[in-house]
Amino acid sequence: MLTSFVTVKEAISLIHENICPLENENVLLADSAGRIVQQRLLTDRPLPPFDRVMMDGFAINSDAWLAGVHKYFVTGKQMAGSIGASINSQDECVEVATGAPLPAETDSVVPIEWTSRVDGKIVIKPPAGTLVQSGQFVHRKGSDHSVNETLVDPGRILNPGEVAIAATCGYTELAVTRLPMVCILGTGDELVPVESTPTPYQIRESNLHALSSACLLEGIRLPVIDRVPDDQEMIRNTLKKLSRGADLLIFTGGISVGRKDYLSEVLADCGFETIFHGVRQTPGKPLWFGKKPDGPIAFGLPGNPISAVVGFVRYVRLALKLLQGIKTNDPVTVELKESIENSHSFTRFLPVCLEEKTSGAMRVQLKQPNNSGDLAALVGTDGFIELPHGKKNFCKGYPAAFFPWQSRGN
Amino acid sequence: MLTSFVTVKEAISLIHENICPLENENVLLADSAGRIVQQRLLTDRPLPPFDRVMMDGFAINSDAWLAGVHKYFVTGKQMAGSIGASINSQDECVEVATGAPLPAETDSVVPIEWTSRVDGKIVIKPPAGTLVQSGQFVHRKGSDHSVNETLVDPGRILNPGEVAIAATCGYTELAVTRLPMVCILGTGDELVPVESTPTPYQIRESNLHALSSACLLEGIRLPVIDRVPDDQEMIRNTLKKLSRGADLLIFTGGISVGRKDYLSEVLADCGFETIFHGVRQTPGKPLWFGKKPDGPIAFGLPGNPISAVVGFVRYVRLALKLLQGIKTNDPVTVELKESIENSHSFTRFLPVCLEEKTSGAMRVQLKQPNNSGDLAALVGTDGFIELPHGKKNFCKGYPAAFFPWQSRGN
Repeated sequence: MLTSFVTVKEAISLIHENICPLENENVLLADSAGRIVQQRLLTDRPLPPFDRVMMDGFAINSDAWLAGVHKYFVTGKQMAGSIGASINSQDECVEVATGAPLPAETDSVVPIEWTSRVDGKIVIKPPAGTLVQSGQFVHRKGSDHSVNETLVDPGRILNPGEVAIAATCGYTELAVTRLPMVCILGTGDELVPVESTPTPYQIRESNLHALSSACLLEGIRLPVIDRVPDDQEMIRNTLKKLSRGADLLIFTGGISVGRKDYLSEVLADCGFETIFHGVRQTPGKPLWFGKKPDGPIAFGLPGNPISAVVGFVRYVRLALKLLQGIKTNDPVTVELKESIENSHSFTRFLPVCLEEKTSGAMRVQLKQPNNSGDLAALVGTDGFIELPHGKKNFCKGYPAAFFPWQSRGN
Repeated sequence: MLTSFVTVKEAISLIHENICPLENENVLLADSAGRIVQQRLLTDRPLPPFDRVMMDGFAINSDAWLAGVHKYFVTGKQMAGSIGASINSQDECVEVATGAPLPAETDSVVPIEWTSRVDGKIVIKPPAGTLVQSGQFVHRKGSDHSVNETLVDPGRILNPGEVAIAATCGYTELAVTRLPMVCILGTGDELVPVESTPTPYQIRESNLHALSSACLLEGIRLPVIDRVPDDQEMIRNTLKKLSRGADLLIFTGGISVGRKDYLSEVLADCGFETIFHGVRQTPGKPLWFGKKPDGPIAFGLPGNPISAVVGFVRYVRLALKLLQGIKTNDPVTVELKESIENSHSFTRFLPVCLEEKTSGAMRVQLKQPNNSGDLAALVGTDGFIELPHGKKNFCKGYPAAFFPWQSRGN
């Protein structure tokens, strides 16, 4: 248990170390988009499954053309999804469509553009310098993949391409990592619901909505939301209730402010271990992370609106990915448009606007709010950059790690 | 009406010109994440709404401290969400918590760390070189925003920050652009449903699943999916039925292959105008785009799996954004890791893997499939780059536009 402040890097490592992917569940193919597949996807037959015609035209035996036959009787037609057509002699051909099986006794497809019809026969005249060759415009059976070949390994995200592969191989259901069940708990006596008219000294609850929508944008099903007054006993009871079904708990508002051991105390009572409490960063210093053995993991985010959103994007989003077994990439890097000093000894998170890129890298323009309570200052920004502690001057062009407010981009 | 091939740039322009945002609808705040707000979000009171204490500590009148009073009686306590505390004389103070309204007759907050308790009185001793000043650690009423100030303009995407602003200002419902209703129509006699065991010359339908999952990943509600045999009359009937409710139709599979005027003909019968048919690109050349006056817009994507997915990502995704009134950004730019020649006179889309970035820009490694039917070749790639036509050599380091398979990133 670490009770002193950790660095951002240590916090990220500790989150990685303390989160295992959830168990698997089966979902219908139609519900699988964006999920992490946890089984191998195998071919159940060669791909393509037959010699497949790749152009609209006429199928012939190329030996005939090489032997000088340039006019052909059309003996039949073979479309995609049909079979049975064949030729019986060298001067016969079959009309074929893209996607059709190659007719029996033929080995080559001549595109319709190379042909003309003269006296009911097909006359083949390839472009100058081109021959009619065996296997031409034929996608050979098994040439892409043999039977029982692994096309997708476990751990891959099911993007449209992977979904199509699953469909091609006949998977109607897929084993994927279960989606995390998230509960968000808001506390604070000064907070009132959005629909109420606050007295002058109350404020409407906004963090629960921000965090809930952040979860939705990460593909998490509607999180369970609960509010309690700033009362230790009520928080304890709600926490016990929420701990049962949840995989991830998020606390926000009041709970980590001021009375320093309050959160840890209530959480400890409920069987939670503190993994870290406090990160050398600004904004969002009083972040708490812990877990209940064999129970949910939990984050205590500052009640301050900007700190709460920044904490979600930098840490909770990572936790949601790890719970789903999503391989995480390094953050995107962007270039500073202007130099900046970091006089703090802490890592800084600074809101930025993305700008027209020049030669490869995106540039960012800083847009610093006056205080970490003023969310409106962030409107129009695209996310924030991270300037590591221990370095004072960040020059124009410095490549900073960038975190978008929402990971769904343009 | 343009019937000759257009360039990629012309295709993009024509899509922009021919799509208007859908009308608005009201959604609950809890359902608004990721949607495009179509009303101004205004403050209904000043922000902060009261002089707000920013630190746990003691509220005093700074004149007293400046006049030499350093010991204070505690007359009461004011927490977040409570009021009523005040001081009656210069040597009194009120214990305050972060978020509390500043007590009456006080003008300054002294953090608890600057104080000690001696004989029941609070002794204030600021750090060396620090004064107790009026307004210190007080977030002044209205200092962020006045009443009736616009915090969010119409057209903004509702990221968590914007959702929190809406909550703060008391919006329980928001006017947003309606989500497009999408219908996907698959045709092709060789195609059978995923759950069936295909004969050797049939293949399982995969494009409908790929396109449907691509829509879901863009936040579109489950698209309506329909399959018809490759029969002009049945396609016409289905098209008429689908045209009624849909905002966007996607056709795939067989419909645009081979019989060149087939698609345009059926679509024309149903009242659709062709805006372009054929794009100077590879893969995905036979792309069709059109619309029905006062009806849906429509895309005809090639039946080829890679072409269909590439066509979705490059064009249909844009259309979905335009229908929602989402401001589109230029694509992200990435650097080529190695030089490449484009011998085609067409724009090329090439699958790539993102690599560790060096100084700012991401680099990409090309991963070219053998044929545009082999989706498995794309597994492990992150998206594709676009190499414009009219240029032959693309050197190492060339900044190419990058399109991720899914816009939800890490």
